[in-house]
Amino acid sequence: MNFQSPISVSEIAERINATIVGNKNILATGLNEIHKVELGSIIFVGHEKYLKKALYSEATVIIVNTNQQPPEGKCFLIHESPFAAYNSLVAHFYPFKSAFGKEMISQETEIHESAQIHTSVVIGNGVTIGKNCIIYPNVVIYDNTHIGDNVIIQSGAIIGGQAFYYDKKGGDYIKWISCGWVQIEDDVEIGANTTIDKGVSGITRIGKGTKIDNLVHIGHGVEIGKNCLIAAQCGIGGKTIIEDDVICWGQVGITKDIRIGKGAVISAQSGVSKSLEGGKAYYGSPAREIRTVHKELAALRRVPDLIDKLESKAD
Amino acid sequence: MNFQSPISVSEIAERINATIVGNKNILATGLNEIHKVELGSIIFVGHEKYLKKALYSEATVIIVNTNQQPPEGKCFLIHESPFAAYNSLVAHFYPFKSAFGKEMISQETEIHESAQIHTSVVIGNGVTIGKNCIIYPNVVIYDNTHIGDNVIIQSGAIIGGQAFYYDKKGGDYIKWISCGWVQIEDDVEIGANTTIDKGVSGITRIGKGTKIDNLVHIGHGVEIGKNCLIAAQCGIGGKTIIEDDVICWGQVGITKDIRIGKGAVISAQSGVSKSLEGGKAYYGSPAREIRTVHKELAALRRVPDLIDKLESKAD
Amino acid sequence: MNFQSPISVSEIAERINATIVGNKNILATGLNEIHKVELGSIIFVGHEKYLKKALYSEATVIIVNTNQQPPEGKCFLIHESPFAAYNSLVAHFYPFKSAFGKEMISQETEIHESAQIHTSVVIGNGVTIGKNCIIYPNVVIYDNTHIGDNVIIQSGAIIGGQAFYYDKKGGDYIKWISCGWVQIEDDVEIGANTTIDKGVSGITRIGKGTKIDNLVHIGHGVEIGKNCLIAAQCGIGGKTIIEDDVICWGQVGITKDIRIGKGAVISAQSGVSKSLEGGKAYYGSPAREIRTVHKELAALRRVPDLIDKLESKAD
Repeated sequence: MNFQSPISVSEIAERINATIVGNKNILATGLNEIHKVELGSIIFVGHEKYLKKALYSEATVIIVNTNQQPPEGKCFLIHESPFAAYNSLVAHFYPFKSAFGKEMISQETEIHESAQIHTSVVIGNGVTIGKNCIIYPNVVIYDNTHIGDNVIIQSGAIIGGQAFYYDKKGGDYIKWISCGWVQIEDDVEIGANTTIDKGVSGITRIGKGTKIDNLVHIGHGVEIGKNCLIAAQCGIGGKTIIEDDVICWGQVGITKDIRIGKGAVISAQSGVSKSLEGGKAYYGSPAREIRTVHKELAALRRVPDLIDKLESKAD
Repeated sequence: MNFQSPISVSEIAERINATIVGNKNILATGLNEIHKVELGSIIFVGHEKYLKKALYSEATVIIVNTNQQPPEGKCFLIHESPFAAYNSLVAHFYPFKSAFGKEMISQETEIHESAQIHTSVVIGNGVTIGKNCIIYPNVVIYDNTHIGDNVIIQSGAIIGGQAFYYDKKGGDYIKWISCGWVQIEDDVEIGANTTIDKGVSGITRIGKGTKIDNLVHIGHGVEIGKNCLIAAQCGIGGKTIIEDDVICWGQVGITKDIRIGKGAVISAQSGVSKSLEGGKAYYGSPAREIRTVHKELAALRRVPDLIDKLESKAD
Repeated sequence: MNFQSPISVSEIAERINATIVGNKNILATGLNEIHKVELGSIIFVGHEKYLKKALYSEATVIIVNTNQQPPEGKCFLIHESPFAAYNSLVAHFYPFKSAFGKEMISQETEIHESAQIHTSVVIGNGVTIGKNCIIYPNVVIYDNTHIGDNVIIQSGAIIGGQAFYYDKKGGDYIKWISCGWVQIEDDVEIGANTTIDKGVSGITRIGKGTKIDNLVHIGHGVEIGKNCLIAAQCGIGGKTIIEDDVICWGQVGITKDIRIGKGAVISAQSGVSKSLEGGKAYYGSPAREIRTVHKELAALRRVPDLIDKLESKAD
C-alpha cells in the first residue's frame, strides 16, 4: 500500500534503527509484498534464498539482515529482524483503527443513497458502496473495502478479514499485519457466510459480473477476473490469480500463488496445485485435464482383474 | 410458486408484451421451474433443446422465442427473451419486499410463544416458527421460511438465502429471481454457520428429525427426507433429492439434480456425481460402492511393484 | 464435567429411578464420556459391546440395562434406557440456562479491560476473556468459554456451539446434551466464520499460539496442541487429538476419535481416517505418507499404456 506522499529512506531507517547501505537519498513510496512491488516500494528479505528475487524486482528499499552492497538504484536497510522491522513500519504507517467501535456503521463511509443496507450489517471506516447494492443482514464489511454498483451480498458474508499469513520464528507464528483492502466490482454477487480476506499490502479483487456462492473462502490478495462462477464451498489460496470467465464447481480447492487461465472449467472437488492453462476442463485432486483423468480412472477400474490375470499366468 | 388465484393468459401476455399462440382462454396458476410444474404452470424455454421436455410436461403456458403451434391444452407466449420475460413476471407477482428492513424481527411473523429466540436473530416477513424451537444468536431467517416444532438452529446459520442460479447471456450471468421458500419440519437441528437456500420457484425441504452439522451448504430446491444425518461441511447442489435415513459424513459433495436413495451411507469427502441406489455404502470421488473402491485402492497400491516386475521381465 | 461437590450414588439412583447393584456407599464426582472418565465418574453403557470398556475404565458408577454384578469398587445403576437416564442427569445438574437472553453480552462474564470487543458480538454466561484480545463483529461466544490473552477472533466465528452427537433409537436421533466447554489458550487466532463446538462433557481445547483460518470446523471435544496451523475449510471430527506443531493445509478432513502426532504436515484436501505418526508428511484421501502416494499416482498414470501393451501382446 502506498504512502500518501513519498518518505525519505533516512526517516524510514531511523524509525526502525537500521543502517542504510547504498543511496541515502532515495524516496520510499509504500510498503509492499514482493509480488506487488513497484519502483519506490519497501520490502524485506527474511531468508537469504529470497534475496535474488528482491534484487531483480522493482523494489527500491530492501530490509535485509546481512551487511552487503546493493545494486545501483536500490538501497539496503540492515536490520537484525527484517520481518519485525517491516511489520513495525506497517503498524506505524497504517495504524490499527478500531475497525468498528461500538456503532454498527461507521460515520466515515460513502454509501450511495440507492443502496439497501439491511438490519444488523456492520460497516467499517473508509468503506464505499455504489448504486443499487443490496447488503443482507449480518454482513460484516471491514475497513477500506470498496464495492461497486449493483452488488448483492447475502447474509453472514465477511468482507475484508485479515490475511492468514505468518512468519515462523523459533516455533511461534508471528502475524504479518494486513494493510490491504478488498475491491468488489460492479454486478458481483456474494453468497451467504462466504469470507473474503483483504490483501496483506494490496488489493483483493472480485471482477465485474463474477458470482460467488455460499461458504466460499477467498484468501488475501486473490484477484478474480470478470464473469467467473465460483460455486459453494470453494477455497482459493492467497495471491492466486483467476482470469476472466473461469468456472469452479463446488468444493474446489486452489492453492496459493498460482494462475488459472481464462475460461478454464474446474470440476467439483478438484484440488488445483499448479497453474492451469485457460480454455480447458480440469478434474481431480491433483487436478489435470479431465480427459486424462477419466482415462486413468477407467484404467484403474480394470487393475484388480489385470492383477488376477497376471498372477494366474504366473502359476 | 402458485398465484393466490388463477390469472388469465391474456393478462400475462399483455404484461410481458408477448403474442399468444393457441388457446387464449387458458388460466395460469403459478410460475414454476420445469422440474416442479403442475397443470396451469407458466414456464419458459430459453433454448430449443429444452422445448420437447416442456411440451411433455404438465405446464400449460410456455414462453418461447420461436413462433409455432402448441399441442392441444397448452398455449405459447412468443417473446424475444423468454428468460427475461419470465423473470419480470416473478418480479411482478412476487415483488421483492425489503426482506428485513431496519427491525431485527418483522411484525409479519407467527412465532409460537414457547419458542426461544435469542439475541441478534433476524427474521423476515411471513416466517412461521413452531413450539419449543430454539434459535441461537445471529441466525438469519429470510422471508417466508416455515419452521416446525422442536427445531434447534445454532448460531450464524442462514436460512432462505437466494438461489445461486443464473442464465448466461452474451458472457454475463443474469440472476434467476428466487420466489421459493424453505420448509424445516419438526425435530430438525441445524448447525452453526450452515446455509440453506430457498427454492427458485418452490420448496427447499428439510425432513422431520434430520440433523445437519456446522458449515453445511444446502442448495436451492433440495429436498431432504426424514431422519438423515448430514455431517459438517457437506454441500448439496440445487434440486437434489435425498430420501429418508441417508447419512453423509463430513465434507461430502453431492451434485445438483440427482437422487440419493433411502438409507444410503456416504463416506467422508466423497463426491457424488450421479444418483445412488438406497441401502448401500458409497465412497470416493467420484463416489461408487465402497467395496469396489476399496478393492481398486488395494490394487492401486500394488501397481508400482507390478510395473517393476513387468519391466524386469521385458529385459 | 465434575459436580461442584460429590453426590451419593443413592441420590443419583433415586433421581433416575434406577436399582443400585454393588456398593451403595459410593460417591459420584461428575458426568463424563467414556474417553474422559476419572475415578468417581458416572457413565452409561447403551450397548452390551461397550460394557467391557466401561468395566476396565476408571468410571465408578455405570448405568446399564442388564441386571448383573459389578466388579469391586464400582456400582451399577440398572435402568431400562441408560442413555435417556444419563441425559436426564445432565439436564438436571447442568440445566440449560438460556445462553444469551436478550442482551448481547451477559453480565456474568470476566472480560479484561484491555480486550477489544467490537460491535454486535454476543457473549454468554460464564465466559472469560484475557488481556489484549480482539473480538471482531458478529462473533458469538457460547456459555462457559474460556479465552486466554492476545487472542484474535475474526468476524462471524461461533465458539462453543453444541456437539453434533446423537443416539439412534428406533430410527430417531436423540441429542446427547452438551455440558462441556471451549478453552482457547494465549496467542491463538481464529478465522472468519469458523465454528468450534464445545465438548459433550468436557473440554474442547485450542493450544497456545495455534492459528486457525476461515470456515474451519472443529468438532466437540477436539484438543489441538500448541503452534499448529489449520488452513481454511479444514474439518476435524469430534474428540480427535492434534499434537503440537501440526500443519493442516486447506480443506483437509480428519475423522473423529483419532490422534495426529507432533509435527505432522497434511497436504491440502487430504482425508485422514486413521491416526498418523508425527514428524511426517501426508497426502491423499485416504491420507498416507506423501512419498507413497506420489509413487502410486505416478504409477497410475502409466496404467492406460500398460493395459494397451498387455492386450496387444495377448493378440
